[in-house]
Amino acid sequence: MKIDIHAHILPRDWPDLTERYGYEGFIRLEHHCPGCARMMLGDKCFRVVDENLWNPDVRIEECDRSGVDVQVLSTVPVMFSYWAKPDDTHDLCKLLNDHLAEVVQKYPRRFVALGTLPMQAPELAVIELERCIAQLGFAGVEIGTHINGRNLDDPEFYPVWEAAEQHGAAVFVHPWDMMGMKDLPNYWLPWLVSMPAETSRAICSLMMGGVIERFPGVRFAFAHGGGSFPATLGRINRGFTMRPDLCQTHTETEPRELFKRIYIDSLVHDPLILRFMVETFGSERIALGTDYPFPLGELVAGELIESINEFSPATKERLLSGTALEWLGKSRESFETPSSRAHSDALHAAHVTP
Amino acid sequence: MKIDIHAHILPRDWPDLTERYGYEGFIRLEHHCPGCARMMLGDKCFRVVDENLWNPDVRIEECDRSGVDVQVLSTVPVMFSYWAKPDDTHDLCKLLNDHLAEVVQKYPRRFVALGTLPMQAPELAVIELERCIAQLGFAGVEIGTHINGRNLDDPEFYPVWEAAEQHGAAVFVHPWDMMGMKDLPNYWLPWLVSMPAETSRAICSLMMGGVIERFPGVRFAFAHGGGSFPATLGRINRGFTMRPDLCQTHTETEPRELFKRIYIDSLVHDPLILRFMVETFGSERIALGTDYPFPLGELVAGELIESINEFSPATKERLLSGTALEWLGKSRESFETPSSRAHSDALHAAHVTP
Repeated sequence: MKIDIHAHILPRDWPDLTERYGYEGFIRLEHHCPGCARMMLGDKCFRVVDENLWNPDVRIEECDRSGVDVQVLSTVPVMFSYWAKPDDTHDLCKLLNDHLAEVVQKYPRRFVALGTLPMQAPELAVIELERCIAQLGFAGVEIGTHINGRNLDDPEFYPVWEAAEQHGAAVFVHPWDMMGMKDLPNYWLPWLVSMPAETSRAICSLMMGGVIERFPGVRFAFAHGGGSFPATLGRINRGFTMRPDLCQTHTETEPRELFKRIYIDSLVHDPLILRFMVETFGSERIALGTDYPFPLGELVAGELIESINEFSPATKERLLSGTALEWLGKSRESFETPSSRAHSDALHAAHVTP
Repeated sequence: MKIDIHAHILPRDWPDLTERYGYEGFIRLEHHCPGCARMMLGDKCFRVVDENLWNPDVRIEECDRSGVDVQVLSTVPVMFSYWAKPDDTHDLCKLLNDHLAEVVQKYPRRFVALGTLPMQAPELAVIELERCIAQLGFAGVEIGTHINGRNLDDPEFYPVWEAAEQHGAAVFVHPWDMMGMKDLPNYWLPWLVSMPAETSRAICSLMMGGVIERFPGVRFAFAHGGGSFPATLGRINRGFTMRPDLCQTHTETEPRELFKRIYIDSLVHDPLILRFMVETFGSERIALGTDYPFPLGELVAGELIESINEFSPATKERLLSGTALEWLGKSRESFETPSSRAHSDALHAAHVTP
């Protein structure tokens, strides 16, 4: 069984947000040819996307081809819109989450949803989180690595973690609005250099700020293999122990310990690094993630995990679905899998055959 | 033999730079008690340092204790002062480099020097680089991961690379002025999160900007195990191949290939990551570096390398000194080593014993 915890989706259409809210800065999709569209910010196209981004049927076909049983759907981080007026972001979140709910309702055994929240207004974020989980049946939420420059250890966000804990919501943390962007105009460096740093920033803030320990019931997972965090953990832990005056202001528990309480996805594009991650942190903390349908993702879901001969079948299964199920708080039985399909076919055959 | 390519030094005293240049922003040392000092920026102490930072005799004693035969000395990156007026930085560089020259002159078989340059004015940087190598006998220079926001692939810096190539200067690239600093006020995160990203930024810029190929004679080495670059190379290479429109504007050679042309130090504080680095890039590219005498460094030089049982004696020797010699362009014989000392003692004994 394969569950992909890192897959993005957008509606095919949404209202003109500049018209709706009265100011610029929002993303729109421009459908310029059949099956493809431009993601536009103002007059600037910043990404060309295909139908698999918005069409769940195309998506299911592609999942079938690469053997993905379940995709955990979240919005594209450029839609977070934390910079906008809180009520407008809240309204946009509702639009996006309602669309997510529709898709999951149509294919409840193939998709799981993570909602998006107006994090810049924690009190509204709590309201939308509760709606996502209690009313729409989502497994959790996706948030950014910081909220308009405020790090995730800011006590302003405690109510959100409290609500996540109370509702059993999984929290997927994804980089956005990357540090240093203005000085990295070339070579896609905000994606290649700053995104991994953003994720490390979020993990370090949650750990050293004491959030992981204060809210032990929140199941945090981090995109792109935890960014640069796992491979620089030696340095981070060293800093933590050598400068307690700077690093241990909120907790004395070392990052090397706290890593056992968070999850990361497997999207590292490097068998040796994935092996290192499994060796260091255990397959228990790592779940398949592909960044579907974007080009920095893993095009054949699970290919990297399956390619590593040193991994036992049990390790591979844990990486491909076991960790995801635990993180989502779901049972294997809640999804349609090849084996459950075979099982129900067999039952059906038993009933119709005399 | 152990050569530490990453060791910082300052003079014990230098002129009041604010008085000398007429404006604020420069670092000064405030010797507030015997054997220790405060590094001050204006009225703010941002680091307390010990005598081993400025006293070469104390340094030699500590090197002897941890078995370091040679330290490659460079200034502390806060001294780069690229933000200042070019002539003033040039003047400061001359002060610092003259001090470095004195130290190396006193202990020519224990220390090698890397000069500092007024990189914000490449024409002055070239003049000082030439002075460092041709007149002062330095092995190379130390520079920052960017120059006031300009990345190292900027053609403005070509003359510096040209001069480095011509003079056979090694170039040590060290993070400074870290991305995202203003949004990372807590937990030492600019050091723990942004510094590794800075180094990746420098490596990616030099690779994708075509500098590594345009100046094949420049021997670049990068601090802190190359920062986040080695462990995110999978992602970086993936981006490079998937978005040629963004990443291949200056070269089609993949980062995974170009890695074989650069050097990194061993300062990662994690045996599994160092093993990964040796496995992926080869011990040929990695040289012992400790960040002496700072607390984020390796306090017992070479301890990590020596602790890894999977490394053969030849691999360990390469990591501890072989790579450094190649990077510096020096022969083993140019330094006083325990074995050369034993050899000369034996020769001496042979001559005096009848």
